[in-house]
Amino acid sequence: MEINGVTIDNTYAEAFPTWICRIIITAVTREWALKAATEATGFATSAIGCPCEAGIEIEVPASETPDGRPGVAILICTSKKKLKEQVVERLAECVLTAPTTAVFNGITTAEEKIAVKLHFFGDGYEYQKEVGGRKCWVIPIMEGEYIGEEEFGIIKGIGGGNLFVMGENEMSALIGAEAAVDAITAVPGVMTSFPGGIVASGSKVGSLKYKFMPASTNEKYCPTLRDKVPDSKVPAGVKAIYEIVIDGLDEKSVAKGMAAGIRAAVMVPGVKFISAGNFGGTLGPYKFELHKIL
Amino acid sequence: MEINGVTIDNTYAEAFPTWICRIIITAVTREWALKAATEATGFATSAIGCPCEAGIEIEVPASETPDGRPGVAILICTSKKKLKEQVVERLAECVLTAPTTAVFNGITTAEEKIAVKLHFFGDGYEYQKEVGGRKCWVIPIMEGEYIGEEEFGIIKGIGGGNLFVMGENEMSALIGAEAAVDAITAVPGVMTSFPGGIVASGSKVGSLKYKFMPASTNEKYCPTLRDKVPDSKVPAGVKAIYEIVIDGLDEKSVAKGMAAGIRAAVMVPGVKFISAGNFGGTLGPYKFELHKIL
Amino acid sequence: MEINGVTIDNTYAEAFPTWICRIIITAVTREWALKAATEATGFATSAIGCPCEAGIEIEVPASETPDGRPGVAILICTSKKKLKEQVVERLAECVLTAPTTAVFNGITTAEEKIAVKLHFFGDGYEYQKEVGGRKCWVIPIMEGEYIGEEEFGIIKGIGGGNLFVMGENEMSALIGAEAAVDAITAVPGVMTSFPGGIVASGSKVGSLKYKFMPASTNEKYCPTLRDKVPDSKVPAGVKAIYEIVIDGLDEKSVAKGMAAGIRAAVMVPGVKFISAGNFGGTLGPYKFELHKIL
Amino acid sequence: MEINGVTIDNTYAEAFPTWICRIIITAVTREWALKAATEATGFATSAIGCPCEAGIEIEVPASETPDGRPGVAILICTSKKKLKEQVVERLAECVLTAPTTAVFNGITTAEEKIAVKLHFFGDGYEYQKEVGGRKCWVIPIMEGEYIGEEEFGIIKGIGGGNLFVMGENEMSALIGAEAAVDAITAVPGVMTSFPGGIVASGSKVGSLKYKFMPASTNEKYCPTLRDKVPDSKVPAGVKAIYEIVIDGLDEKSVAKGMAAGIRAAVMVPGVKFISAGNFGGTLGPYKFELHKIL
Repeated sequence: MEINGVTIDNTYAEAFPTWICRIIITAVTREWALKAATEATGFATSAIGCPCEAGIEIEVPASETPDGRPGVAILICTSKKKLKEQVVERLAECVLTAPTTAVFNGITTAEEKIAVKLHFFGDGYEYQKEVGGRKCWVIPIMEGEYIGEEEFGIIKGIGGGNLFVMGENEMSALIGAEAAVDAITAVPGVMTSFPGGIVASGSKVGSLKYKFMPASTNEKYCPTLRDKVPDSKVPAGVKAIYEIVIDGLDEKSVAKGMAAGIRAAVMVPGVKFISAGNFGGTLGPYKFELHKIL
Repeated sequence: MEINGVTIDNTYAEAFPTWICRIIITAVTREWALKAATEATGFATSAIGCPCEAGIEIEVPASETPDGRPGVAILICTSKKKLKEQVVERLAECVLTAPTTAVFNGITTAEEKIAVKLHFFGDGYEYQKEVGGRKCWVIPIMEGEYIGEEEFGIIKGIGGGNLFVMGENEMSALIGAEAAVDAITAVPGVMTSFPGGIVASGSKVGSLKYKFMPASTNEKYCPTLRDKVPDSKVPAGVKAIYEIVIDGLDEKSVAKGMAAGIRAAVMVPGVKFISAGNFGGTLGPYKFELHKIL
Repeated sequence: MEINGVTIDNTYAEAFPTWICRIIITAVTREWALKAATEATGFATSAIGCPCEAGIEIEVPASETPDGRPGVAILICTSKKKLKEQVVERLAECVLTAPTTAVFNGITTAEEKIAVKLHFFGDGYEYQKEVGGRKCWVIPIMEGEYIGEEEFGIIKGIGGGNLFVMGENEMSALIGAEAAVDAITAVPGVMTSFPGGIVASGSKVGSLKYKFMPASTNEKYCPTLRDKVPDSKVPAGVKAIYEIVIDGLDEKSVAKGMAAGIRAAVMVPGVKFISAGNFGGTLGPYKFELHKIL
Repeated sequence: MEINGVTIDNTYAEAFPTWICRIIITAVTREWALKAATEATGFATSAIGCPCEAGIEIEVPASETPDGRPGVAILICTSKKKLKEQVVERLAECVLTAPTTAVFNGITTAEEKIAVKLHFFGDGYEYQKEVGGRKCWVIPIMEGEYIGEEEFGIIKGIGGGNLFVMGENEMSALIGAEAAVDAITAVPGVMTSFPGGIVASGSKVGSLKYKFMPASTNEKYCPTLRDKVPDSKVPAGVKAIYEIVIDGLDEKSVAKGMAAGIRAAVMVPGVKFISAGNFGGTLGPYKFELHKIL
């Protein structure tokens, strides 16, 4: 299959279930909501070495937030066991501390919820108040008053949706991946957790040589090793490969994000080949076949 | 003491020693260096609930970096015991994974160093190479090749330098604090770890009511509690207080950063009072007296 | 009328007809589309001293542009007589010159069109090609090939929709205005042409003292002149006023933009009063009554 | 000559004298100074079709501006005859109108000055005041008070310093040019007026086919015409060329900017060749020989 002269590999992205908490952060301006959201979703690229995966899902205009202020929806993804601690710490340290912010439950229909009791920070001076139909706590702070919800819906979503953007050289593949992330950013329900949404060093599980490593370079996809490893999967003429990892609320959103990313990447001059990563079905139950989702 | 009609409190900021690793991240463009640095220093506002404190110190132009590419210097601050793990994880997950990045030791004169052996990721395909006089490892990755140093100088620096910006209302104090951070950002050797560099909810150690809390709201500095708590320290007419926390490589840099911040904050209309936080000398050995540093 | 404790003046914004050309600028990434759009709409705040009024209307995701790349829609507003020259110069100098850009007609349903014959730049090497169903010209340039449409729909739209954000001090009013602009930015069909969308120095037509001035300070709305001019319109307690000027494709869009702006501004602490500017019906035929549009 | 494996052409950039006004714009925060500066320097890429050439030279930290607030220095370049009008209109419409801004003379040592009498906008309510040793006018406006200098030094500087970044494909050349602009941005005394600092469609004077065109595509440097025009100057293997145009206060600054740009561009993978544009000495008296300035 080809789009705009770029081959779309006949393969699938393999993804796995992950628990997700969606939080709407609002602030006095869009700028301050973005600053808090960026800090709260930092150091959260990959479950391998970070305490969770997190990223900005989408901006929410003031007309659609519970308190009528500009907002940003973030997704925090990890195992159910670790999710509460990560949400507590990230909201407590990166949002409650940020100027003018408030937080609201971003999945009101979720059956399961976690309680994030920031109000203890008020040391007894806190009190309850309704904002936009949401039960909130008001905490006196040096700025004035922090206001936010403390119950957040969590759902079983999808981690590890992905696509590979391959180019005739490094800069083509990079801009191809950037264009893909620009397109994915406009799709609701998904986020990309890596810096700028792009992974330069995709990995395989474990290591052949260093047994203590939980993950190591995916040598079959390394262009400089094309002639050195057996069974290299680097297509002829490809000199650089970037991976984009997509986590999302459900299969439909992840498929839509992947498709938008592919359609945007193939428009970039020098992009040659689009593929996706899978582990033969051993990693997780979700399969996103590239030819089907497009 | 007054500057531009704003009272500068006759007090001092109390700070404490912290171990600091300074890393120069370079990339193909300034934009990509900043994206990697932002991710690598995220979720790192306060040692209370984050695994470390981290932030961008300063941009380094291409003409001054080891590999001649645009760079950003970041500081990672925590106890000596935890520093290595934090540097390893943040470089491995947020910089090695980011497009086109390289990392270099940012304190070449430091007596102590930590080893950050990212090259194991290469699974045997890695090799050594000199770049700009630095001994680097080259790791084949999907993008092409990652190149970086693996020994980073660490020094005992200073955490907790701070100032309080107080305004006649919330927005004045907020813009006053933003102007202060703008000025501090231009000073080498220091960084501010909170979102936008500003803390909205300064804390005291422990809690009076909730014994399980390691920190809680600093009620004596809460404007809405001014008439409710004994010994409130909120000056008359002050309706909002923001704290700026400054970590830095040495006393001189922190003092310079604090002074630049204060001089900028007092130019903002509606800023009324500048102070700083201390715990009577119980927290740490460094005292930055506001009247002296100005 | 009050919203969130802020008085909404019982008055109207008076607006006038203006000719508008809407152009979709696409580029290889969102970043490059924004850079070109920003340059092309610069030096275009007010018809009084600039050659036109222009601004970014809205971002258009890659999935919705004719060439499947990230896009930005801009509006260029002026008299019918001057419109063509402004569109020609701004596209020729600020978009054709910008990396990777293309331009497309942003109002395909318009009855009137202007021809913008950039293809003469090709000096005979240019040729025609269809892109996304649009008849385009391809011009060989140093970058490679520029591709764009050359006929752009123009319609009679609305200039001068406006609102006044008044605050208890300067910083409150400023952030109130910024929050309003954040909300207006999310509304399709409108744009704000001033820096950051905000006017600090609203004017009256002509001058009482300097006859050679086409416009001068609107002294009745100057807070520092409240006790010095007769008939000051500055409400008690107001210390700063910012105006937001909104140009848009039709009455409905301008009304929606104004309403979104007002609803966002009143959420900002220290904002006290919302009003709008009119000249008693002498300026133009459109009246946007604040109480009606909300 | 080669740097990092990239050929540096044995040629020179030809530049010409231009009159330059340097203005320091300050504001309450860095963000607002940048917004005003961006608007004031918009629609000002090339003297061919824009009323002037203008751009941001450098950020000036609060500690170095006359009023102690964050600042941005801009350069406005055109003929001596047109310079005053351009400075007047751009300051009046894009800076006086912008929130919280002030303007100061950026070349205090200049022998010649232009007067920019914005204070007439005050309609008689204006008055004089000294700020940071500068004689300023205070104009009552809706925001509060605008404060600024009204005499600006002008000097004969240099327009048209340039370099060509050539790549093995479009994206390599683009990122090469971006890296060059990143480096040039850090050099004081120079600015790049095009969107993102980069020209995609460099031109020759006049047109062979369309006599009414003042400029047209530089077909000898068009990669897609390499086999179609006689005497193509596109080196073998080059598929895209971007030009960077540098205006500056003096020869030394322009040479330094060009050298910094070249040194950064050659670090980008896929950049193959660096050259510069000249017209055999007919355009202007300044010659910047690439091999000499490096």
